[in-house]
Amino acid sequence: MTSHVVALCGGVGGAKLAHGLAMALPAESLTVIVNTADDFEHLGLHISPDLDSVMYALAGLSDPDRGWGQRAESWNFMEMLQQLGGPGWFRLGDRDLAVHIERSRRLSEGVRLSEVTAQLCSRLGITVRVLPMSDEPVRTRVLTDEGWLEFQEYFVHRHCEPPVQAFAFAGAEAAHAVPEAARALARSDLTAIVICPSNPFVSVEPILAVSDIRLALERARAPVIAVTPIVGGKALKGPAAKMLGELGLEVTPEAVARRYTGIIDAFVVDAADPLPAPIRGITFFSAATIMRSEPDRLRLAQAVLRSAAELVAREP
Amino acid sequence: MTSHVVALCGGVGGAKLAHGLAMALPAESLTVIVNTADDFEHLGLHISPDLDSVMYALAGLSDPDRGWGQRAESWNFMEMLQQLGGPGWFRLGDRDLAVHIERSRRLSEGVRLSEVTAQLCSRLGITVRVLPMSDEPVRTRVLTDEGWLEFQEYFVHRHCEPPVQAFAFAGAEAAHAVPEAARALARSDLTAIVICPSNPFVSVEPILAVSDIRLALERARAPVIAVTPIVGGKALKGPAAKMLGELGLEVTPEAVARRYTGIIDAFVVDAADPLPAPIRGITFFSAATIMRSEPDRLRLAQAVLRSAAELVAREP
Repeated sequence: MTSHVVALCGGVGGAKLAHGLAMALPAESLTVIVNTADDFEHLGLHISPDLDSVMYALAGLSDPDRGWGQRAESWNFMEMLQQLGGPGWFRLGDRDLAVHIERSRRLSEGVRLSEVTAQLCSRLGITVRVLPMSDEPVRTRVLTDEGWLEFQEYFVHRHCEPPVQAFAFAGAEAAHAVPEAARALARSDLTAIVICPSNPFVSVEPILAVSDIRLALERARAPVIAVTPIVGGKALKGPAAKMLGELGLEVTPEAVARRYTGIIDAFVVDAADPLPAPIRGITFFSAATIMRSEPDRLRLAQAVLRSAAELVAREP
Repeated sequence: MTSHVVALCGGVGGAKLAHGLAMALPAESLTVIVNTADDFEHLGLHISPDLDSVMYALAGLSDPDRGWGQRAESWNFMEMLQQLGGPGWFRLGDRDLAVHIERSRRLSEGVRLSEVTAQLCSRLGITVRVLPMSDEPVRTRVLTDEGWLEFQEYFVHRHCEPPVQAFAFAGAEAAHAVPEAARALARSDLTAIVICPSNPFVSVEPILAVSDIRLALERARAPVIAVTPIVGGKALKGPAAKMLGELGLEVTPEAVARRYTGIIDAFVVDAADPLPAPIRGITFFSAATIMRSEPDRLRLAQAVLRSAAELVAREP
């Protein structure tokens, strides 16, 4: 009997759980669908930050301290670029740059982003399937007190400083899920769809803005289970907590869970946080969600898969 | 009384003499016009190997052993690129890459190559004027026993192995000298035009194929003086000797001098070689042309300038 799990994720936190799932499952039993709405063009290159974070996590190349980019990285390109007066706000390591240049080269030859991703993963020894959510461009824009900003302008250049009011995902209406993603979500042997602990506003919701992915999740018979990115009233990484506050929402797991109403069946909160009061249609589970080590990633993946199985077993 | 010198040069050998001239002259008294016919597109980047060699020589950044690229270079980009299955035949150091990316970025914004070059030189602390021969594309093609090859395909990828039969400079007919180059060559205070010890076939002749540069040299009242790239029957660097042989020419300074008939007034051979028999219209001088050190570069520059002055003094 075959079985399959689909994970949806953004960058760093999500990539860790994707890695945990890859350790927990046979390679052919996992498909990872990655946010591409924070992709952008920089220095003439197509940069896909979340795809890179996922690839680096799965290939064991992530830098453990910085939280982004490759470990054992060097910065000679960047140093010289700045000496030449080039833009320094988006840091590109020498090794990391090879991924952007090779991806851009293949895209310019007309190869689809999903194919390029498959080729890069293959060269990096990644055996699970990693897919961009769409081969068509979707771009997050952030409405701030200073007006609309492109995502990387807001996120990296402005360090998320301008208070946010809203988000838009340009191109999402017209974008299609990559066919392999649509097929994975429609599998009859699907046992769980996992929404990784990524930022709801700028990592998960752009994926859900692709209508055939959203529809597939709404229709899926397999349980959809999300993992909290908020622990102890804080985001483990990134601006999720700041964004919740600026949007007038509580900085709690429930506030995140509520954004996924109609999409998810279950939501995993951290073991250190109280189990929230019930929300219609959402079952809460508790697990150790902080992933400091590789065993933490595996344990959380196993706990999430156990919770999904428990949900199925409870069904009348 | 002002005076001015224009140097024409290709890559490594020519760049050394350009550096010698820059040491010998006040910054405002030297213009260096550089071959761009070996420019090419690679990995989506505009690469200008000769401009880079000249800039690196003038900025003191050249690698002394490799003969190309920057010193204190690292190769992490290249290592990762090859791991990803990208093309490895054209080696790009991490620091060097910053020049290609920054140049390509500005060109894509519509900035002319000559302006981009001026900006890069300024950031590298280069005070003499360095100009591409043209802002329009000129591309060397090499007719070999295997047919026509693009220059870098022949030069780097094929290591100059296929025997050559002829060269073509696509775009040269239509290309204009950059205005600053034309103006420098038309200056009334010009005291010498120096053809640096570069490969005659693929470094100097592409510059001379730009018709307003060729015409300016033919009409110039200032002496035009070339320095031999052939010493003791060999090229100091690169395939000049191999090319002379494959084209059925002698591997001698005279054979190179003859290619410049109608263009040059004088030709400097190495002190270790015999002074050639006279050629109509060309006066031969002798100097130590091998540049192993910075003082060698300065001494050769001074010898070339002395020879040019001597020619003027001899005029009836």
